[in-house]
Amino acid sequence: MSDSGNRPTHIRLTSHPGAGAPVRFPLQWGAANPRDRGPVIGTVSRPGDRNTIGSHGGSYSLYRALAVSAGALNPIQRPDLANTMPVVPFGPFPQWSEPGRIVSLDPFGHTVADAFADLIAEGVDIRPTIAVTKARLTLFELQQAIRDKRLAVDGEIVREHGDISVIKAAVDPVWHLPGIAARFGVSEEKLRRTLFEQTGGMYPELVTRPDLEAFLPPIGGISLYIFGDPAAIADPRRRLTCRVHDECNGSDVFGSDICTCRPYLVHGIEECVREAQAGGAGLVVYNRKEGRALGEVTKFLVYNARKRQEGGDTAAKYFERTECVAGVQDARFQELMPDVLHWLGITRIDRFVSMSDMKHDAITRSGIAVGERVPIPDDLIPIDARVEMEAKKAAGYFTPETPPDAEDLLATRGRPIEEY
Amino acid sequence: MSDSGNRPTHIRLTSHPGAGAPVRFPLQWGAANPRDRGPVIGTVSRPGDRNTIGSHGGSYSLYRALAVSAGALNPIQRPDLANTMPVVPFGPFPQWSEPGRIVSLDPFGHTVADAFADLIAEGVDIRPTIAVTKARLTLFELQQAIRDKRLAVDGEIVREHGDISVIKAAVDPVWHLPGIAARFGVSEEKLRRTLFEQTGGMYPELVTRPDLEAFLPPIGGISLYIFGDPAAIADPRRRLTCRVHDECNGSDVFGSDICTCRPYLVHGIEECVREAQAGGAGLVVYNRKEGRALGEVTKFLVYNARKRQEGGDTAAKYFERTECVAGVQDARFQELMPDVLHWLGITRIDRFVSMSDMKHDAITRSGIAVGERVPIPDDLIPIDARVEMEAKKAAGYFTPETPPDAEDLLATRGRPIEEY
Repeated sequence: MSDSGNRPTHIRLTSHPGAGAPVRFPLQWGAANPRDRGPVIGTVSRPGDRNTIGSHGGSYSLYRALAVSAGALNPIQRPDLANTMPVVPFGPFPQWSEPGRIVSLDPFGHTVADAFADLIAEGVDIRPTIAVTKARLTLFELQQAIRDKRLAVDGEIVREHGDISVIKAAVDPVWHLPGIAARFGVSEEKLRRTLFEQTGGMYPELVTRPDLEAFLPPIGGISLYIFGDPAAIADPRRRLTCRVHDECNGSDVFGSDICTCRPYLVHGIEECVREAQAGGAGLVVYNRKEGRALGEVTKFLVYNARKRQEGGDTAAKYFERTECVAGVQDARFQELMPDVLHWLGITRIDRFVSMSDMKHDAITRSGIAVGERVPIPDDLIPIDARVEMEAKKAAGYFTPETPPDAEDLLATRGRPIEEY
Repeated sequence: MSDSGNRPTHIRLTSHPGAGAPVRFPLQWGAANPRDRGPVIGTVSRPGDRNTIGSHGGSYSLYRALAVSAGALNPIQRPDLANTMPVVPFGPFPQWSEPGRIVSLDPFGHTVADAFADLIAEGVDIRPTIAVTKARLTLFELQQAIRDKRLAVDGEIVREHGDISVIKAAVDPVWHLPGIAARFGVSEEKLRRTLFEQTGGMYPELVTRPDLEAFLPPIGGISLYIFGDPAAIADPRRRLTCRVHDECNGSDVFGSDICTCRPYLVHGIEECVREAQAGGAGLVVYNRKEGRALGEVTKFLVYNARKRQEGGDTAAKYFERTECVAGVQDARFQELMPDVLHWLGITRIDRFVSMSDMKHDAITRSGIAVGERVPIPDDLIPIDARVEMEAKKAAGYFTPETPPDAEDLLATRGRPIEEY
């Protein structure tokens, strides 16, 4: 194998269709099997094989670049995928080849070591974008739930010391640009140009290579946690409890009391475990979309603006403050979120552990039926998180009670910044 | 203000020095005050003002692009920074202008609303890259520590219900490319070219614009949690306890028992709280470098390869498996990590709550003295995490005991994949 592709004597700043169309590995997005669809190839060592924009690992490609710069990583090294394949099979499901159903991940991303074994052996740099493994979870809150008799040890899902058996998966984003454009109702050309311009010029191939339909965007991916029998997830005769959670490091890891994120997440896990113990399955989808996909710097700026504004931190002005600082209340765009549910073959969610109307509406619009909606129990709402909760209820969040009115919103106040 | 810069009639794929040198806002990296240094401008709406490669928010610029595509965000909107400024002042410290001391963040990133108020009022799109706020943390493990009498309620740091008062900061990366190259011992030209090539062609300005020295890379940032009096952090007459923690979502959030991440993090917080209660300060640095900066897909592939390899999951083969799958054992490169400690004005760490020799060595090499090293208490190591812990001790991890020998490493085995 020659490494000349990796070290050209001059740098090609971008490529053009005539110069490098994916002749050998065309992608037929939506094909029903991996060989017809073709492998997603984001290699940086054999440019002629590429059929995508971007590179594997998303943001982490920058660390890979540092490793190569520092001489710690051989840039032409191929991953040894021996023994890495999923611990349980997933799919194929009909959804994988329904037109426009899945546009933000590669449904065959976990199968490449098998499906393209011959090409990989030949030296083609094909990498998984999905990995499926097992884990045991130890969560203090759930150990407490066992002591409180809300959860029982069953020896299989909840083990003797209170740790919980799960199957988990990591999913890197793979965007099919025509499908993403259709989902947002814009032309593909406009989407490509906006992605290029609003990132300050990331990946000119977005505009020079309309023939390359796949993009590996440098954004965070998805983690899936599956409780109970994975076969129950896609089986409408069995029950499914699901929480879709968007990352909030300050609460999920550090327990900040300004929002309900960790308490609601852990409540969701508890509900998932109970469903699994009753013979169904539980699913937690964890999306890396810190601070409503605006990032943590923006989030902390908004906290300060909320706490310091005239009249103090009130539910009445909750959304306004984010919009002032960020220009938008929320950049998560739940339109792409249901893709991973379709990848799992889901057609219904019996219990949906989320009050978000945006998530609910995106899921049902995508054709998945949602049964019961499970609000966060009132005693799990941290003291300073009432502002967010009331503001969201007034804006359309699911609540079994009467939503708060304007007076309630003004009366719901957070801790002043001096009192932290 | 015209928005014509945002919607050119033709697309410029990259720029060249003659075409757009930062004439009005040159950067003097390392200058002692923000006006001499100049603002870091990554605006996408007035290209003529730009003096950096990339755009603000890193990865989240892609979500911003989706928001613009969908018509939800006005691309020329400027953030309203009223009331967003830090809750406590930080610096300036001498380190901010020592040559080569800080190369991966903007030491003035939290001050821009004040330092450049006139330019912002005039319409220049200058954004903070650091935000500093306050929080109250509720952590079950620490509430248990209070019940166990390991921690006491003091009413100020540990409040009546066991929640903990902190100052916290979010820091987005800002890379000074000549400084990054010097840190890694490579030429700037090679670094720029490798960043461009290994990402599959992200930001051609990396190679076409040697006059632009700053880069806003689309990678995760840093969160800082400060316990006690922030003035103690930079004061060598007072004590400082510090944990530097690299993100591990599977343990930090979900409590996976295959590693020590969350238990060690929470132990670090407990040590920080105790130091703060004794009149010093505590600091937790949380770096978004999932899976040793290789990402979660790679991490889960490695878990499978470890568990399924011939002979089972042993400490003896711990590092080998990562290297087979990823090509490198670790891509975190702790060389950049000390920058944020220098930003905080730190000259010594009295108690360093980490056993990592790589972190320790990077910190001391950067001129910060490290006193005691605090290992994770043995009873906090989860059952399946022994493999990692023993492998790391043999590889140079700090341990007060005799490091394990080859026989110990073979004897330290993890749970087989069938027994999850």
